[in-house]
Amino acid sequence: MAEKIRFLLTSVGRRASLVNFFTKELSGIGELLLSDMSVYSAALHTGGKRVFLPGYRSEDYLETLLRACDENSVSGMASLTDYELNFLSSAKDKLKDHGVTFFGPNAEVSQKCLDKWLLSKELERLGFPFVKSYIELNEFKKALAAGELEFPVFIKPRFGSGSLNTFVAENMREVEFYYEKYKDTIVQEYLVGDEFGVDVYRDILSGETVSIFLKKKFSMRAGETDKAVSVKTPRLFEIVEEFAYKFGITGVADMDILYSCGEYYIFDVNPRFGGGYSLAHECGCNFPRYMLNNLRGIKNERAIGNYKEDICMFKSDGAVFTGMNDPAFRGNLNG
Amino acid sequence: MAEKIRFLLTSVGRRASLVNFFTKELSGIGELLLSDMSVYSAALHTGGKRVFLPGYRSEDYLETLLRACDENSVSGMASLTDYELNFLSSAKDKLKDHGVTFFGPNAEVSQKCLDKWLLSKELERLGFPFVKSYIELNEFKKALAAGELEFPVFIKPRFGSGSLNTFVAENMREVEFYYEKYKDTIVQEYLVGDEFGVDVYRDILSGETVSIFLKKKFSMRAGETDKAVSVKTPRLFEIVEEFAYKFGITGVADMDILYSCGEYYIFDVNPRFGGGYSLAHECGCNFPRYMLNNLRGIKNERAIGNYKEDICMFKSDGAVFTGMNDPAFRGNLNG
Repeated sequence: MAEKIRFLLTSVGRRASLVNFFTKELSGIGELLLSDMSVYSAALHTGGKRVFLPGYRSEDYLETLLRACDENSVSGMASLTDYELNFLSSAKDKLKDHGVTFFGPNAEVSQKCLDKWLLSKELERLGFPFVKSYIELNEFKKALAAGELEFPVFIKPRFGSGSLNTFVAENMREVEFYYEKYKDTIVQEYLVGDEFGVDVYRDILSGETVSIFLKKKFSMRAGETDKAVSVKTPRLFEIVEEFAYKFGITGVADMDILYSCGEYYIFDVNPRFGGGYSLAHECGCNFPRYMLNNLRGIKNERAIGNYKEDICMFKSDGAVFTGMNDPAFRGNLNG
Repeated sequence: MAEKIRFLLTSVGRRASLVNFFTKELSGIGELLLSDMSVYSAALHTGGKRVFLPGYRSEDYLETLLRACDENSVSGMASLTDYELNFLSSAKDKLKDHGVTFFGPNAEVSQKCLDKWLLSKELERLGFPFVKSYIELNEFKKALAAGELEFPVFIKPRFGSGSLNTFVAENMREVEFYYEKYKDTIVQEYLVGDEFGVDVYRDILSGETVSIFLKKKFSMRAGETDKAVSVKTPRLFEIVEEFAYKFGITGVADMDILYSCGEYYIFDVNPRFGGGYSLAHECGCNFPRYMLNNLRGIKNERAIGNYKEDICMFKSDGAVFTGMNDPAFRGNLNG
């Protein structure tokens, strides 16, 4: 009998749907382990075995993680937030030494995902259309004077996650105001067009991109896709496959692409499950299964575009309930 | 056999949970009708009979609504958004003429809910603690000079819904900047303390407040309660009951109350189901049943505090899926 797979999802947050997808795929072949730095995470109360980990900024985070992996014979793991993931990307080898495959990029790729300015430079280097970006106020002023872009412009945190503190600036006074109020600011040209969300899986054994799921977004909320519809666009399949290879995607990634003036602009890459992955899953994609296959030494077959088209997703007001007598609230996660 | 109750919920938005609660309560005794100005509303794809209504700002909104009520023999209705609700509060009598009981306040009370400045004045008049509020920049400057309040202060839209465009201003420059950028601004003192969400039902037949549900919030997201726990606080039950009577709550309301320096400050009143109502329902409250009872001529019995304490709610990533071949997307809501 094959060994049970123990898969750890960290920073599960509110993503109860992913916990359910993994639980289903692991049924009969393994077990799901969950962690979140907050015991008030919705997904932590959805199912699976809970593991206590401090926040990734904590000094004993990595040590606690490795010990938990050893104690629970974890063989694979993934993180659902950008900053923890970025930290873990530097610990990939250490995790490997403990028998844990981390489904995430290396530190260099991770940094390019987290830093909007680096991403823009990398896209330019690789020959993809890119959103013009400026971090120095003077550089932005020069570009403006040279007619490289004009108001309005987007202004946001260079290392931001979600849409937190993202504004449309109408004039220089607003830009200067923002630079005074916030550190690590980036100004980007304001492009208008159709926005696509992409869920991509690049097999960690074969290196082949095996699945690309495209959705057209038509509404955002709190930085996440709120309403979207599954679509198929051959040109985008090509662009995403080329990008995944050149950029160095490993396993799951979520990308945001804007179609403006005949060009597809990649403007955000998250090397993890995106907030709109549920739609891909509903349409027939199954990234958890791909991950578990890879863990068992099985290469996945190329299946780009194999999903249901024209399916809409509308986020609703789901909630998870649990009593205050849950042992998690007394620091005892599994009763 | 009693006549079937046909209940209309408008502006259902993403609130699939409420659609499910009403559907369950109406089972065997009636039918739920739903509308939203967007066919991409999650709740519209959750169940019930869909009714087409234009946005409340549309010229033929009221006429279309009354015709839909006539054609479907609607006897009761409620709206889930502040602005539509405010419009409907002026049409209460007209709806009554068509045999429809509108579960909402009259126009005067509705205006006091929508306008943070009026609410503050009304609380003062009724003798409740109130958050100091200023709409004129000069009045705010005078109050500041007189030491009535100090920085930081809250600055937000006077008629705002949710937490949209709400900021903490640290100095006068930021306040002036905001006044320049936005119309209808209100400055409020920045109070810190525990925040409570209240779901209240005041019987529309007996005039008695029959249910008060209290939750302590510990996290907000996109202006809605994201994490909360059910609590019981006798002093708050008294305050809310007194307020509901004096202020003129009718049917359902949702209130936000801040406990700061030994005082309970009511700072937001929405005369409708709040975004955190699911927790009240999970704990044993049942406002849809109260409403349907009232529609059938039954007065509800006082049951203040009859609910499960110490139950936590964590909002999760629920979603509703439907094919683009849904007739709603071709303007044909019910196939």
